[in-house]
Amino acid sequence: MRIRYTSLLFVFVCAVVVNAQEVPTPKLNLMPMPASVKFHRERLAVDSNFRVATRGHSDVRLQAGIFRFLKRLEGRTVLTMPPGLAADDQTTPLVVNCQGPGKNIPGVGEDESYHIDITNRQAILNAPTVVGALRGLETVLQLVDADRNGYFLPGVQIDDQPRFPWRGLMIDVSRHFQTIEVLKRNLDAMAAVKMNVLHWHLSEDQGFRVESKKFPKLHQLGSDGNYYTQDQIKDIIAYARDRGIRVVPEFDIPGHSTSWLVGYPELGSAPGPYTIERRPGIFEPALDPTREEVYKFLETFLGEMAALFPDDYLHIGGDENEGKQWDRNPAIQAYMKQKGIKDNHALQAYFNTRLLKILQKHGKKMIGWDEILQPGLPKDIVIHSWRGTAALAEAARQGYDGILSNGYYIDLIQPASQHYVADPLPADSKLTPEEAKHVLGGEATMWAEWVTPETIDSRIWPRTAAIAERLWSPRTVSDVPDMYRRLAVISLQLEELGLTHKKNQEMMLRRLVRNDDIGPLRTLVAVIEPVKEYRRYQMRPQTMLSPLTGVIDAATPDSEAGRKFSWMVSEFLNDGPRYQLYRPELSAMLSEWQTSGASLEPLIDRSPALKEIKPLAQNLSVLGETGLEAITYLKLGMPPPRDWRETSLAKVNEAAKPYGALEFAVIAGVKQLVNSAGDMGSGRR
Amino acid sequence: MRIRYTSLLFVFVCAVVVNAQEVPTPKLNLMPMPASVKFHRERLAVDSNFRVATRGHSDVRLQAGIFRFLKRLEGRTVLTMPPGLAADDQTTPLVVNCQGPGKNIPGVGEDESYHIDITNRQAILNAPTVVGALRGLETVLQLVDADRNGYFLPGVQIDDQPRFPWRGLMIDVSRHFQTIEVLKRNLDAMAAVKMNVLHWHLSEDQGFRVESKKFPKLHQLGSDGNYYTQDQIKDIIAYARDRGIRVVPEFDIPGHSTSWLVGYPELGSAPGPYTIERRPGIFEPALDPTREEVYKFLETFLGEMAALFPDDYLHIGGDENEGKQWDRNPAIQAYMKQKGIKDNHALQAYFNTRLLKILQKHGKKMIGWDEILQPGLPKDIVIHSWRGTAALAEAARQGYDGILSNGYYIDLIQPASQHYVADPLPADSKLTPEEAKHVLGGEATMWAEWVTPETIDSRIWPRTAAIAERLWSPRTVSDVPDMYRRLAVISLQLEELGLTHKKNQEMMLRRLVRNDDIGPLRTLVAVIEPVKEYRRYQMRPQTMLSPLTGVIDAATPDSEAGRKFSWMVSEFLNDGPRYQLYRPELSAMLSEWQTSGASLEPLIDRSPALKEIKPLAQNLSVLGETGLEAITYLKLGMPPPRDWRETSLAKVNEAAKPYGALEFAVIAGVKQLVNSAGDMGSGRR
Repeated sequence: MRIRYTSLLFVFVCAVVVNAQEVPTPKLNLMPMPASVKFHRERLAVDSNFRVATRGHSDVRLQAGIFRFLKRLEGRTVLTMPPGLAADDQTTPLVVNCQGPGKNIPGVGEDESYHIDITNRQAILNAPTVVGALRGLETVLQLVDADRNGYFLPGVQIDDQPRFPWRGLMIDVSRHFQTIEVLKRNLDAMAAVKMNVLHWHLSEDQGFRVESKKFPKLHQLGSDGNYYTQDQIKDIIAYARDRGIRVVPEFDIPGHSTSWLVGYPELGSAPGPYTIERRPGIFEPALDPTREEVYKFLETFLGEMAALFPDDYLHIGGDENEGKQWDRNPAIQAYMKQKGIKDNHALQAYFNTRLLKILQKHGKKMIGWDEILQPGLPKDIVIHSWRGTAALAEAARQGYDGILSNGYYIDLIQPASQHYVADPLPADSKLTPEEAKHVLGGEATMWAEWVTPETIDSRIWPRTAAIAERLWSPRTVSDVPDMYRRLAVISLQLEELGLTHKKNQEMMLRRLVRNDDIGPLRTLVAVIEPVKEYRRYQMRPQTMLSPLTGVIDAATPDSEAGRKFSWMVSEFLNDGPRYQLYRPELSAMLSEWQTSGASLEPLIDRSPALKEIKPLAQNLSVLGETGLEAITYLKLGMPPPRDWRETSLAKVNEAAKPYGALEFAVIAGVKQLVNSAGDMGSGRR
Repeated sequence: MRIRYTSLLFVFVCAVVVNAQEVPTPKLNLMPMPASVKFHRERLAVDSNFRVATRGHSDVRLQAGIFRFLKRLEGRTVLTMPPGLAADDQTTPLVVNCQGPGKNIPGVGEDESYHIDITNRQAILNAPTVVGALRGLETVLQLVDADRNGYFLPGVQIDDQPRFPWRGLMIDVSRHFQTIEVLKRNLDAMAAVKMNVLHWHLSEDQGFRVESKKFPKLHQLGSDGNYYTQDQIKDIIAYARDRGIRVVPEFDIPGHSTSWLVGYPELGSAPGPYTIERRPGIFEPALDPTREEVYKFLETFLGEMAALFPDDYLHIGGDENEGKQWDRNPAIQAYMKQKGIKDNHALQAYFNTRLLKILQKHGKKMIGWDEILQPGLPKDIVIHSWRGTAALAEAARQGYDGILSNGYYIDLIQPASQHYVADPLPADSKLTPEEAKHVLGGEATMWAEWVTPETIDSRIWPRTAAIAERLWSPRTVSDVPDMYRRLAVISLQLEELGLTHKKNQEMMLRRLVRNDDIGPLRTLVAVIEPVKEYRRYQMRPQTMLSPLTGVIDAATPDSEAGRKFSWMVSEFLNDGPRYQLYRPELSAMLSEWQTSGASLEPLIDRSPALKEIKPLAQNLSVLGETGLEAITYLKLGMPPPRDWRETSLAKVNEAAKPYGALEFAVIAGVKQLVNSAGDMGSGRR
């Protein structure tokens, strides 16, 4: 059956018809999709008598999870349910049957599986561990549906467990500091899509973010006052544990360490003094791997951190050290000669070997970026691959555990569809089943050069939910349109956890326009995207101290309006020579572009911060006008004038140029319209 | 000159034309309006060279204030300005010239005055204290304007100081707990409108919110785990002090004390046991004023709190104790007989006298609600009047300081215009100047039965800014339309501080509708308001544990669309018999009501939480249709059929009935239209 785009985009919560005879596989709004879902013809009412009882194991963490579940259910349904847990597990609507507590500290081997069975009478959630039960409760919340008769849970039987044990989100809190509230709401969002690792990127050239009682100048001089106290860190770890999420800290060394050296220049490979870095990029400062004092410092510091962070792993970064300070330091050069260390790679391998011993002494396993993989390291380190699945597979063949981040760089403004196809263990993988076990999963990476607490949610969500699905669900769950359909539903549900990815956009537009009349700017922003990869800084340089409140910051990746437009264009063109399908919707959209472009001019004149998008406003009108012309020719079956295609394509190509580091997400669709209209004239149809 | 409503509502940031010859008094968007503003013909550019220098006194608090100022200025203009303070005070665009630090702990006698002089060359802000400088910086931020040439500060000379020294916002954190983030962003908002007292209502029947190290069962058993640690309290006090805001804690006794008695039933006037109250209302539990143990407890507890809260004042509540437990307790009755205490009022006076001694011993002045004013109390207590200006004046005549809250009960869903006219010292006050000095100011009161962190901002703001103006600006600043014009601008600026009063509404509508298609619901919600005063609970009873996520919670007081509609109706009718003015706008608005009402039906069918507003949706259509009919008759100059007026008014009256504790804010306007059309038939025109 052909899926209409309207139903994909607009009917988010499709009524789940539970009559199995009529609809064999109703569209559930689950994300990540469970390993197995079967449907009954039944449904369980969710009304003001809804309660939860536990059976088997129960503890504070499970109960807190159930109370959070009930609060969200009440919030969504506006029903006041009886407070507390029910005692009777025979008739209570939802019974959580947990077999045991699971690991005390969340860890890689945690059993996160669960089983849900919903009938007319009761919903039973079975899980071997509390974490499994928490994962199942999120699924139950995603199952809640409604119709004229009220809220209900559809009759289903779900068997579910993750494909990979390591499903992480890395948050860089160093380039821009992120508050405790940002972390907590993102932990809630991670739990909602069953992610289980917060990789906390805590130090960088641009900031050192942890209170160290042993070396207080680290946070005092390296953070501008923006750091987490140890109490706050414990609070975050507890908050994550409550949600079955591990917290893996990263202290990136020997490079990326300018902020360490502000307070402790004696650790550096050049004399200093050092100041906190304000630019983005790769910088020279690096710890001096030839000095015993550096290892003594690390021994004490990492000992302090090892005690603070209970996770088995500690991430030591290790990336992007170009060794320029090492090259220029005669003492380091002499040391290398003396020890027979032939190059900087070997020197960093030497550093890592020493580091590994320190971590082992403190009971931690080492994880680091690709660069740490060097001959001679033992097999219990984990390789974090920014290079790709080939590097990951090679590490696995050598017996190293690894996780993938290549493909999951959410700071690069790629669409969810692109992240969705990145698979840590692709279908064509040549690894043996035994080797494949070394591929533990992956992590989305939120590098924070261009995000603040105001905008970070919109860079992480909803796209990261697609990555969460890739890491949890079977490889065969890969239908991109259906992913987008479910992503829109999940995106809305994340708002109930306090996520600001949707609501901050209009606020930012109001601030830019300086009043409530944001209609035309909203129309423009809906169809533009920040430029991808690392082009933003090249086109619109800023520092870490610059305001991130421009149109580029309000614009989001993966334009939904852009996808809708492309879809409608292709349906419309496929409907030729009738050209009826979606014509009214397309015409309305193009007309709106045309008029909004013009309406933007006076707004821009009153708001100098909008000046940089003036060419975009003009081009929005041009794109609208050109698209409308093409539709008119197609509709009338009338070939356009001879030069029309060429002139129009020139205009569209002109409009494809980015301004303010923003570009249109609708260029291809308009070109398709122009070319189709042009083809009529050239007899190519 | 007649002010057009469009310009009031839509052109929020009017370009300040600084040519004094052309426009003698440009419309500035200042709130509260300064005591004196004069205009020059000059302007100072705000560009990426904008910096601040200090002259005279400087300290950490001033510098932090300047950095916050710069961050907001950068955020609003999307300009990266040079970091840090400038050294040169001769050419730097803004110079802050502060004469001294002011009080170490913010207090009632603080000098908050400031003087601003802006020329082409420089802006100079003079202030005797740091707090005065902070107030002035807020004015500078409100002065920032823009046109095609960029951002700028208009040439002005401002002399400003507050009319009243006590300008407070009371936040009840007991009925519903409010997080630290809620308090911080509201402190920021208070500072933006120059308020200077956070009255923190910390204990109630429904919750005890402070960690007590002396009596830990207070917070452990009385708060459901929702309390502030002493560290958090110190953090809030420091945050407030940084902004020149006092923090006055309230511990409401002897009534309103159920939550104290959960952990310490022995303090009560009945044996207990007690549980945390979940309902709204006035309850019986009260401390036993006849037992020495109670005073010993209070001596220790208030000593702990007196050390924690540095403000000179401590609020002891004292309201709404009906004494029912006292009446029924034979020991209390015997004690009263023995001591010659003739009634419960006298008993509470006895209690307050004892309490006063305890507070005095700990160096605190007592403040309490009207009820505490009883013969024999010394003159250094402060009366907090919920009764009104007459009670306040009477207290002042007796020599008692007082503050007003009657008229400022923002939980009662009244329009800002109503709060705006409430004056602690009305024009017709009979107090002598000496007596009038006892009237210290007032406080907006955010009672929290029906607000959560998600909705509280929308109940406080923007209306509280009108109260802030009443308490700061000269009495003569009283133009309601101009207040609303400026309120809309300030409301938007508050968003840059993280306030959620605007952005959470659409999020809540998305959650209710369960998708992004909220247009019709938004149209309805824009013209309805929650029922006023205490009718919400009567019409739609809930408990403190109920979800506050319904349409009533998304709807806001003081409907802006309702005001706009009324204005347009009156302009339209005044334009008879031509009936041209605002006819297109009115017709468009009424048509939108008509169609939205119909579009809401399927949304309601899919979202049972919307069921309660089904009659409102139908009535929205009816109001739209009726209004359109009236406009058609008026436009055509055609008298309607004989029964039309009666039938139509009956429909409108039917539509005036509240549903879901929500009512239309446009009834009067539609009736005016109907009556005007009807008058044509009856020959009354």
